[in-house]
Amino acid sequence: MKRPTIADIARRAGVSKVAVSYALNGQAGVSEATRRRIRAIADELGWSPNTAARALSGASAYAVGLVVCRPARILGVEPFFMQLISGFETALSARSYGLTLQVVASLEAEIEVYHRWWAERRVDGVILVDLRVDDPRVPVLEHLGLPAIVIGNPRGAGRMAGVWSDDAAALVEVVDHLVGLGHTRIARVTGLPELLHTRIRDEAFTAACSSAGVSDFRLVAADYTGESSASVTRALLSSAAPPTALVYDNDVMAVAGLGVAQELGLSVPRDVSLVAWDDSPLCRLVHPALTAISRDIPAYGAHAAQRLLAAIGGEPVSDFQDTTPHLVVRGSTAAPSPHPPPPPRPL
Amino acid sequence: MKRPTIADIARRAGVSKVAVSYALNGQAGVSEATRRRIRAIADELGWSPNTAARALSGASAYAVGLVVCRPARILGVEPFFMQLISGFETALSARSYGLTLQVVASLEAEIEVYHRWWAERRVDGVILVDLRVDDPRVPVLEHLGLPAIVIGNPRGAGRMAGVWSDDAAALVEVVDHLVGLGHTRIARVTGLPELLHTRIRDEAFTAACSSAGVSDFRLVAADYTGESSASVTRALLSSAAPPTALVYDNDVMAVAGLGVAQELGLSVPRDVSLVAWDDSPLCRLVHPALTAISRDIPAYGAHAAQRLLAAIGGEPVSDFQDTTPHLVVRGSTAAPSPHPPPPPRPL
Repeated sequence: MKRPTIADIARRAGVSKVAVSYALNGQAGVSEATRRRIRAIADELGWSPNTAARALSGASAYAVGLVVCRPARILGVEPFFMQLISGFETALSARSYGLTLQVVASLEAEIEVYHRWWAERRVDGVILVDLRVDDPRVPVLEHLGLPAIVIGNPRGAGRMAGVWSDDAAALVEVVDHLVGLGHTRIARVTGLPELLHTRIRDEAFTAACSSAGVSDFRLVAADYTGESSASVTRALLSSAAPPTALVYDNDVMAVAGLGVAQELGLSVPRDVSLVAWDDSPLCRLVHPALTAISRDIPAYGAHAAQRLLAAIGGEPVSDFQDTTPHLVVRGSTAAPSPHPPPPPRPL
Repeated sequence: MKRPTIADIARRAGVSKVAVSYALNGQAGVSEATRRRIRAIADELGWSPNTAARALSGASAYAVGLVVCRPARILGVEPFFMQLISGFETALSARSYGLTLQVVASLEAEIEVYHRWWAERRVDGVILVDLRVDDPRVPVLEHLGLPAIVIGNPRGAGRMAGVWSDDAAALVEVVDHLVGLGHTRIARVTGLPELLHTRIRDEAFTAACSSAGVSDFRLVAADYTGESSASVTRALLSSAAPPTALVYDNDVMAVAGLGVAQELGLSVPRDVSLVAWDDSPLCRLVHPALTAISRDIPAYGAHAAQRLLAAIGGEPVSDFQDTTPHLVVRGSTAAPSPHPPPPPRPL
């Protein structure tokens, strides 16, 4: 099928191509009646401006970019990214912007992609995710001057605007809940230690446990995969004085933790309490359903994309603090058993 | 930061802009030594051709499109799409093609996106997923003439090439496994009935059960969500003569099925056997780990994207049958108990 052109519209309307161009671009030079007639013919023929031509004339690609630097095996299983992308889409599609996605294996590759996108004018701006401690991508994007929004705490976002939520407050709520139930031995199974939000949550957990008088609290690093969580959870629950409550940094790790507890013959929540971060449907699929930190990830994504579009449009954009994640209590947390469970069955 | 231009390269090299253009486009008119020197300066300055300019001259957007028509809540929890996208990316990034992603709420919206992408030359081709019975998108894409590859059985792909795997053979393997263990009451919890692969699997399941002499087999429709699976599984397991084995159409529904069995006080696999489709890490996170139909989804995605790039390049592309999914037996399937479980505990 042949795409309709300005020439086709001109022929049908019986006017010059220049007149069609004036009419469709909102320039003076044609009467209002002619403009309306030309517009109607263009609609009828299914005419749209060529993205490439628009991009050359207006210096806009009508696309924003997202680079995700996670191994495919992690990307697939964690619901977070697809929910975030769904949120981006609601804001972008309302303005006819596309989302260009690239999955890379390293930060170096990610930085190369930004350089290439910038040089080729392939995207009008980017959304930066998985903000790290001393993130090397921040100075690169600042240097390129590509409009960008950071999903993460503004303290790590340089001169770019950050869309963030108060994870520290959420962790205080979790610790308060567990301490209120009577737990005194609590472990936090963390995500990748190089991510800024891991550090922020670690600090908040440590401060909350200290101020609540938790006698025994531990931080154990994992990497968001079920495999890493299973191995760490097995070690914790098989230790001499096992924690009576485990707080995980995502939903997948919490589900894996539940699997390990069941495998060890422990009952949840009687023998051990579990809390997940990110209240995806996964948390409600398992039995018992998991107590979880809940937040509206698609809304979070939409807020970031709206701000990026504003930045692309040249508007000043400042940091945005999204709704604070909150605790949803379900069946995986309860008071610790007065009778500690027997040692785990040998495997 | 200012992007380097042909003029910058010319100035640095001390040659004309025309000479730079000849050198970088591989045209005659400059000596080989000059071409090498200009190329080196261009690399040093970080010059890349402008995508929009390339697109206008070469009629290529250097992007392929994927429209996903699933509610955000389903998209987030099912690992399938992110794994498929990871596979697309490996093939596309090797050729510097971008992936443009759009999430829509309806087939009508999806068809509108194809028209717009085509009219705007925003993508060079598309990958069609979730092929339906009598899919209305197929004639639209045929009519537009936009290069396209269908992920799905060629019998529903019209004149486009299909990348597919033999789901029917996989279901025969599942039924053989369960019948070999002694199951005679088997239920299949299906995905969306309007999808072509649901129908193909339904037919294969029915044929395999009939020819294996399974006395009681049932097909129950769900929609890939844990919620739908939980409700259907609860009804099946609470019925008068409950099935002793359940075969689910994805991993999320199987995990939800396990949760319901545990909630009803049933032991898996002693009281009921469960089989998942799509062997994502989820299947290994839960306890017991789930017997599952396994396939390499990223490879599947890569094969589709490679064929789309060939089609965009004008090469003839034919259907491609990918590796047949195979059964991985784990802890969720066993012989049915000679002593049927007591009726489920009231909730």
